[in-house]
Amino acid sequence: MSKPLILITNDDGIQSKGISVLTAIAQRIGNVVVAAPDSSYSGMSHAMTVNKPLVTKPDERFGESVRAFAIGGTPVDCVKLAVHELVPSRPDIILSGINHGSNVSSSVHYSGTIGAVREAALLGIRGVAFSLDDFDHDADFSYAEPVVAQVIEYFLKAENFRNVFFSVNIPKGEVRGIKPCRATLGHWLEDPHSFTAPDGSEYAWLFGKYINDEPSDNDTDVAWLNQGYATVTPCRIDVCDYDVLRQLNF
Amino acid sequence: MSKPLILITNDDGIQSKGISVLTAIAQRIGNVVVAAPDSSYSGMSHAMTVNKPLVTKPDERFGESVRAFAIGGTPVDCVKLAVHELVPSRPDIILSGINHGSNVSSSVHYSGTIGAVREAALLGIRGVAFSLDDFDHDADFSYAEPVVAQVIEYFLKAENFRNVFFSVNIPKGEVRGIKPCRATLGHWLEDPHSFTAPDGSEYAWLFGKYINDEPSDNDTDVAWLNQGYATVTPCRIDVCDYDVLRQLNF
Repeated sequence: MSKPLILITNDDGIQSKGISVLTAIAQRIGNVVVAAPDSSYSGMSHAMTVNKPLVTKPDERFGESVRAFAIGGTPVDCVKLAVHELVPSRPDIILSGINHGSNVSSSVHYSGTIGAVREAALLGIRGVAFSLDDFDHDADFSYAEPVVAQVIEYFLKAENFRNVFFSVNIPKGEVRGIKPCRATLGHWLEDPHSFTAPDGSEYAWLFGKYINDEPSDNDTDVAWLNQGYATVTPCRIDVCDYDVLRQLNF
Repeated sequence: MSKPLILITNDDGIQSKGISVLTAIAQRIGNVVVAAPDSSYSGMSHAMTVNKPLVTKPDERFGESVRAFAIGGTPVDCVKLAVHELVPSRPDIILSGINHGSNVSSSVHYSGTIGAVREAALLGIRGVAFSLDDFDHDADFSYAEPVVAQVIEYFLKAENFRNVFFSVNIPKGEVRGIKPCRATLGHWLEDPHSFTAPDGSEYAWLFGKYINDEPSDNDTDVAWLNQGYATVTPCRIDVCDYDVLRQLNF
């Protein structure tokens, strides 16, 4: 069997440690192409660039065996451009990350790391996003590496999943196991910091804290991650609420 | 009963015709505050600004009875800043639009118009996004107006919906009725236009066409919209795929 073609992106930018680690792991499994933002696009969700062209620069940092591109756009832009132009054939899987910082709970909606693999699923390609529960630029990925490899191998073999993508969160330090589970309900309570600029303009800097909206011992990503487990959450493309749909009457 | 407090935003920007129309409709129903991007933020999905402050300028275009703010940020930024700082009390409902252009099918994932009301739902506030199937800057909203008013009144009275937000698409021209339905499965096939800049840099401009991934006569938004019906699609915050979750074994 020929080696799988693995496309890799992230939202922290091509210079981040997390994408280097993910690329090294993926190289042991398949042929790798990297198409990642040329700078940080954190919090960009499923945003795409509609009003300007994307600068696209070949990048040699991963060595001769990995074709790589630094792109002036969002993670979703990178996936679109890569799949439709940069890769030699259709990828067998699209990986995103490893993000510096977890993407549990409502982060599925804000995360550019996860946006990239939602786009994979829209294109009918399996997609898995990886996030480490450590924001440090020089985070230690050594405990995460075998988990990431195991999850990639698992989803490369899985044949029966359609219209779904996967978000994997990995604890800092030792990993006690892998738990498939849902994302907990939660939201960000903002406390914007306002100030007046020298020219009199008013500014506000969003600054918030995360609020868990359900008991913290539920069978959810936040609970398991806090107990040292990696979590795997399957996410739907079809977000219709069918229960509510049946109740609507116009 | 006191009048409801209605917060309005959009992604086309505060200068667009669609938000003026929506504001005028909402003023007949409640007290209105507008907090909208100061320019176009189309395709920004659920993106939020994490690395810079947001310029926030009072805006008088809607007259003395509407407090309004033009904000240098995404629709989600506008909702966060408004709810946590700009409005006098918690809004009873958050409305977004009226977007110039429909947001059917996978647009739920790309649309900034819809991102704004997803954020509403995360904050426990009802949210309804409106999109007209006409990209023209000077689109005719006259047929849409009674539908928008009816839908706002409906969701202001609805008490039993939690963790859900609503995307409403309205046809161009006469409206034959309102159909609650799911979004069709579909994706964008990109055909990037590449060019070399004078300095030798390579650029690509994303340019695509929409592909419907299921029969066009299904009971979905695309099918009903094409037949002249407005559609109302309830969307979940919890995007976990529970069927797939049960199949995962690690």
